[in-house]
Amino acid sequence: MSKKLWQSGQQSPDKRVERYTVGDDYLVDQELLPYDLQASKAHGAMLYKQGLLSEDEWNALEAGLLYIRTLWEENRFEIRPEQEDGHTAIEQYLTEKYGSVGRKIHTGRSRNDQALTMLRLYMRDKLETLGAQIVSLAGVFRTAAQAHAGQAMPGYTHMQRAMPTTVGVWLGAFADALEDQAGMLPALKSIIDQSPLGSASGFGIANFEADRAYTARLMGFGRVQENPIYCANSRGMFENTVLHTWAPVMLICGRFANDMLLFTSAEYGFFSLPEAFTTGSSIMPQKRNYDLFEVMRANVRRFLHAQRSIEDMVAALYSGYQRDLQWSKKPFIQAVSLLEDTLDLLIHVLPELRVHPEKLQAAMSDDIFLTEKVYELVKQGHAFRDAYAMVKQKYFGDNA
Amino acid sequence: MSKKLWQSGQQSPDKRVERYTVGDDYLVDQELLPYDLQASKAHGAMLYKQGLLSEDEWNALEAGLLYIRTLWEENRFEIRPEQEDGHTAIEQYLTEKYGSVGRKIHTGRSRNDQALTMLRLYMRDKLETLGAQIVSLAGVFRTAAQAHAGQAMPGYTHMQRAMPTTVGVWLGAFADALEDQAGMLPALKSIIDQSPLGSASGFGIANFEADRAYTARLMGFGRVQENPIYCANSRGMFENTVLHTWAPVMLICGRFANDMLLFTSAEYGFFSLPEAFTTGSSIMPQKRNYDLFEVMRANVRRFLHAQRSIEDMVAALYSGYQRDLQWSKKPFIQAVSLLEDTLDLLIHVLPELRVHPEKLQAAMSDDIFLTEKVYELVKQGHAFRDAYAMVKQKYFGDNA
Amino acid sequence: MSKKLWQSGQQSPDKRVERYTVGDDYLVDQELLPYDLQASKAHGAMLYKQGLLSEDEWNALEAGLLYIRTLWEENRFEIRPEQEDGHTAIEQYLTEKYGSVGRKIHTGRSRNDQALTMLRLYMRDKLETLGAQIVSLAGVFRTAAQAHAGQAMPGYTHMQRAMPTTVGVWLGAFADALEDQAGMLPALKSIIDQSPLGSASGFGIANFEADRAYTARLMGFGRVQENPIYCANSRGMFENTVLHTWAPVMLICGRFANDMLLFTSAEYGFFSLPEAFTTGSSIMPQKRNYDLFEVMRANVRRFLHAQRSIEDMVAALYSGYQRDLQWSKKPFIQAVSLLEDTLDLLIHVLPELRVHPEKLQAAMSDDIFLTEKVYELVKQGHAFRDAYAMVKQKYFGDNA
Amino acid sequence: MSKKLWQSGQQSPDKRVERYTVGDDYLVDQELLPYDLQASKAHGAMLYKQGLLSEDEWNALEAGLLYIRTLWEENRFEIRPEQEDGHTAIEQYLTEKYGSVGRKIHTGRSRNDQALTMLRLYMRDKLETLGAQIVSLAGVFRTAAQAHAGQAMPGYTHMQRAMPTTVGVWLGAFADALEDQAGMLPALKSIIDQSPLGSASGFGIANFEADRAYTARLMGFGRVQENPIYCANSRGMFENTVLHTWAPVMLICGRFANDMLLFTSAEYGFFSLPEAFTTGSSIMPQKRNYDLFEVMRANVRRFLHAQRSIEDMVAALYSGYQRDLQWSKKPFIQAVSLLEDTLDLLIHVLPELRVHPEKLQAAMSDDIFLTEKVYELVKQGHAFRDAYAMVKQKYFGDNA
Repeated sequence: MSKKLWQSGQQSPDKRVERYTVGDDYLVDQELLPYDLQASKAHGAMLYKQGLLSEDEWNALEAGLLYIRTLWEENRFEIRPEQEDGHTAIEQYLTEKYGSVGRKIHTGRSRNDQALTMLRLYMRDKLETLGAQIVSLAGVFRTAAQAHAGQAMPGYTHMQRAMPTTVGVWLGAFADALEDQAGMLPALKSIIDQSPLGSASGFGIANFEADRAYTARLMGFGRVQENPIYCANSRGMFENTVLHTWAPVMLICGRFANDMLLFTSAEYGFFSLPEAFTTGSSIMPQKRNYDLFEVMRANVRRFLHAQRSIEDMVAALYSGYQRDLQWSKKPFIQAVSLLEDTLDLLIHVLPELRVHPEKLQAAMSDDIFLTEKVYELVKQGHAFRDAYAMVKQKYFGDNA
Repeated sequence: MSKKLWQSGQQSPDKRVERYTVGDDYLVDQELLPYDLQASKAHGAMLYKQGLLSEDEWNALEAGLLYIRTLWEENRFEIRPEQEDGHTAIEQYLTEKYGSVGRKIHTGRSRNDQALTMLRLYMRDKLETLGAQIVSLAGVFRTAAQAHAGQAMPGYTHMQRAMPTTVGVWLGAFADALEDQAGMLPALKSIIDQSPLGSASGFGIANFEADRAYTARLMGFGRVQENPIYCANSRGMFENTVLHTWAPVMLICGRFANDMLLFTSAEYGFFSLPEAFTTGSSIMPQKRNYDLFEVMRANVRRFLHAQRSIEDMVAALYSGYQRDLQWSKKPFIQAVSLLEDTLDLLIHVLPELRVHPEKLQAAMSDDIFLTEKVYELVKQGHAFRDAYAMVKQKYFGDNA
Repeated sequence: MSKKLWQSGQQSPDKRVERYTVGDDYLVDQELLPYDLQASKAHGAMLYKQGLLSEDEWNALEAGLLYIRTLWEENRFEIRPEQEDGHTAIEQYLTEKYGSVGRKIHTGRSRNDQALTMLRLYMRDKLETLGAQIVSLAGVFRTAAQAHAGQAMPGYTHMQRAMPTTVGVWLGAFADALEDQAGMLPALKSIIDQSPLGSASGFGIANFEADRAYTARLMGFGRVQENPIYCANSRGMFENTVLHTWAPVMLICGRFANDMLLFTSAEYGFFSLPEAFTTGSSIMPQKRNYDLFEVMRANVRRFLHAQRSIEDMVAALYSGYQRDLQWSKKPFIQAVSLLEDTLDLLIHVLPELRVHPEKLQAAMSDDIFLTEKVYELVKQGHAFRDAYAMVKQKYFGDNA
Repeated sequence: MSKKLWQSGQQSPDKRVERYTVGDDYLVDQELLPYDLQASKAHGAMLYKQGLLSEDEWNALEAGLLYIRTLWEENRFEIRPEQEDGHTAIEQYLTEKYGSVGRKIHTGRSRNDQALTMLRLYMRDKLETLGAQIVSLAGVFRTAAQAHAGQAMPGYTHMQRAMPTTVGVWLGAFADALEDQAGMLPALKSIIDQSPLGSASGFGIANFEADRAYTARLMGFGRVQENPIYCANSRGMFENTVLHTWAPVMLICGRFANDMLLFTSAEYGFFSLPEAFTTGSSIMPQKRNYDLFEVMRANVRRFLHAQRSIEDMVAALYSGYQRDLQWSKKPFIQAVSLLEDTLDLLIHVLPELRVHPEKLQAAMSDDIFLTEKVYELVKQGHAFRDAYAMVKQKYFGDNA
């Protein structure tokens, strides 16, 4: 029969309030648990160093955290809704199995502390792996651009044929855009790479001096986030900063999806993918649909709404922790995995791009070469505006 | 080994594309399955009536759908990710257990048809139950307003004390607002209450004439949604219309949550709830937090983002079904349950509201009665603007 | 040298704060001025009826308000930034030209009162005119649908050709959608049609009894919005409710714009508009661009952001007026005019739609008739799923 | 009588279409004109270098651009709606006053080129000045934090008193946050600092070789944005990237505004500002309202919606210019000036912050020191969780 960490008397919390406030947040913590364990280990080592844990307790803690990690990997460590969160589940497990260390592990920290640190570690990890994916996708676009460098293609403005370009230029534009965005990541990392552990509920603890530099070093952080109110205020705010920085990457992928949906339609037919990448219809035998790009188009919107959902909550808050912030975890993790999956899919799919030269050639209609004719006249000495008018008059007459 | 409905050859779909496009959508269908069964039954009855199912097949179908429903209620009917959706799971189950009827049930319909009809039935249900909840919450506010009709309270503008009012007027404002919004629901219902079943993929089927009036009648719809492209285009659009109409209700609840968070703070102290409705802190023994209102404040934002997430997808689409629409299901269901839970919680909590007259009285400082003094002078014949200036001069002098 | 209404001492407001808080709001009031005058007249009539204005004062007021209206129509009544708003501009003008009535007109009301009433009158007007426009556009779509009822056209799903349909069905879908949405307007009107005048700052005035039923009747409102806190809380909330109800209409127009941008491209070429409705390029002589639909597509997003901008502000507020609400006026008026202009343009443009049968016919490729072949086999007694597989096998073989 | 740049025949554009597509965009160009002139000068110099302008023409151009700049500064250069944009206004003015150079200036560029370059120059400028403002505001917060370093203040979580902190820590949190965000600006600058001039409509010009490195150097850009489709695709995308990077700064300001609205209320009373920074009421003589923070709170939302409005448009587009992008200009400029004004105001206001020690002291109630008592027991050797329970039991007994 599990009590809340903050409960000491007899009165049970109202069930409906509990259900409403906890929601499915405990499931999110399930995914973040390894980061919570990592932070708990650093915190425990610090308590041991300060003499607040005995050697036996510290050994028990290390073993316990390792064991929970193993259980977690085998899907055998389950956070229960009435535990509210992973922090409680860990503390209760340690107390039940390892005794006193469980009742001491929360010394000098708060659950806000834990949530902040766990998320910071998660962000730092993802910054690393996503950064690599972005660079890798840029490379895949570059390779494809080079492979089709010479293939002519109409360029469009206003969704109408405009001027000649090449498949290589079109694909290269995505490579360039991704490379530019990758340039933002080191600056972002230097914001994220600071340890909030030890800020307690956002105000430190008046008569407890945590060795914050020590825990920061153990977790590999570049520095300590000194001001405890800043630590508390960065909850949600840092998630938002991270997603703001990644949003343009998602938009670049979405732009490619938009283009592909147009260019793979029967009417354009410029490109295709092998059948294994397309889907069919339950009633129309002929269908070959590019669902992957439709879902990608949708996922851009889902990513943006995850970011905005965090932002809109955060914008309404005051300094210090408020429970609203609990709801920043789920959209954050969701946005991260939407971006990961999208990058991963494009890296996988792009090398399979099939280019159809005959369709591209057929679309290179005469009209898109008219600007060249204007410049022939310019080279003969006509002012541009006059040359433009002459060509227009010649080809379109009084209807022009 | 399960094949897709649209697969007939040997080539398997690419696994990553499949994972990316299906996502966790199959889990959403799990929740909507009863509505899919209801629509399938009406569709089957129509096929039977048209002679496309034999009596045996029709009997098998009725039994099969009922049996799936029972399995579902016992959490024993599971849609697997490689089935993509509930429609496929139902057809495959029927085919395996009941033979030919399973291979015939999809005659004259498409999965879009099924998804549309299933969601329409779900919406219609929710319109009914949510409508009742809104009226019920309005009543709870009204009762509370009457109970505290005479209790004085400062009214605030610009977050500063302004003029005297009463707790009854404050609570009554919520009752009035909810009642007004409830007035929108019949008009909304008359949009939703039309049957899309039989529109196939959005274009009917050239040589198949579904008896749409018959299936509409069986499902209890007020009318048939005749134009099949309108049926297809209403996917996502109707969800959006429904959430647009409910958004103001969520905002009214959120306004109350905002007020309560202010008025239950130590500095105001006007109201409280029994301890069972509040939560504590894992490190600060004194804390009594009103997490329920913080979560409610957050849930308003979550609701709005669910609505906008649907809307932003829909706004980017062309006529006819596109796979993006798959992602309108999850936020729709999520928004519905956020609203349901919020209404339910307030109905449960509001009768427990404790009013603290001494705190309210202490906040009725002299300054909020100054406007009355202005009107005493007005009654003595002074022009309002002069009276205002006289009072201001008298009480604030040259600093005014 | 103009003083603020609330200023009586010597100290001037800080210039930067004034600029920051007023922004360009005074320009918005310029547009709404006639509604402020209408409300002021009703308020004055009530003061006269109650004996708070003499007959001379009332005559002066009527003349003054009429004169300001005339000046406004001739663009000669200008609200200055240091006046903050139209309410102040009117009062100051009346005081300067008509003496005592100016110093009395604000008796028993507040600026919030005025803003609320002015906006309510504006909304009521717009509900009427926009309702008529929506019905009119539905009619224009209906007429076009009938004119092209027989013209075959491919239907699309997943942006790929799916099944045969007609131009008439496609256009008719928009007519149906608009008619359905028009059905929401009477319910919306019955919310809007209540008079907030007399609620003062949201708490009435303790020793002043406004005859609210009288002013409501003079302005033609169906009822009085009794609860003064509800009046205050409906600021922004009602704007949001109105835009929520109209958003689906804007989305319907946007869907048509999306379709047209595809169908007028060189690759589709199904439809065109006369050249006067298209635009050219400053450098490419051949260009005929459908900018109007691009701008319409953008205007859908602008409308939605105007709505959301109001909503996000409102969601963060507490009961009672807060200055944030000032910023609900501009996006509201902007959204109204985006919708008005979009409806107006479509009503103007749609009758000019040129249909190109040869292009439509060319797109009716054989594959979109394959579902018909499936149903031929169904009619011969094959189960649907078997018939589907047979057709798929026959036309696509092992690649299927 | 002004013709469009793309018009050569007799037929006039439809007036309603023109009004709808141009909107008030020409007014936005009015503000950006100096940047357009700067880009035009670089372009002209390049044409002269390439021999496409004679020396006389180049001299005329330099003089003309300078003269337009002077007229602009004196508010005497007005873009007319029928000119559509500033680019047209400049070309037409040059043609009328300076003859042939006007008809030649558009050689080798397009209006998209001009818009892109003009906006890029504007962004680069604003990056510089806003960067300086952010650093300056961080300094103002730091100074205030130091001035009140020792002043005790309750820290809040869940909007309830939690633990003791100081005014210095609270203010310092804002300084730290701003400094961290300032660290993103150099990375952002290195994206923005590339010249798009010479990309024409997004595809270069087949038989015209612009010297892009030369114009880039003349305008002081760090590099050329080589890929012309990337140039075109960066329209809107870069605006979005910039606003994404600045959004956290706006949120930090908004957090401070939220805090101040709470802490300046009568119930808290921790801080105040001089009366010149507050506003009054038109009917309540006592009011001192902190409108500046209410407007700031609203401006955060307005900023975010400007960013999202650009983003949502951009996300729907295909590669290459589309007219929707015209509507990214206005929200971009608006967002920039909201941020500028907000930073500027805070720099101005913060030094005037008045701290009220007696109010702060009164709020330091005993309960916020209970965590210290827990730690006294921890120091005596009790496990934290036991110590917590003991304190809770002692002070709250069975109600705990």
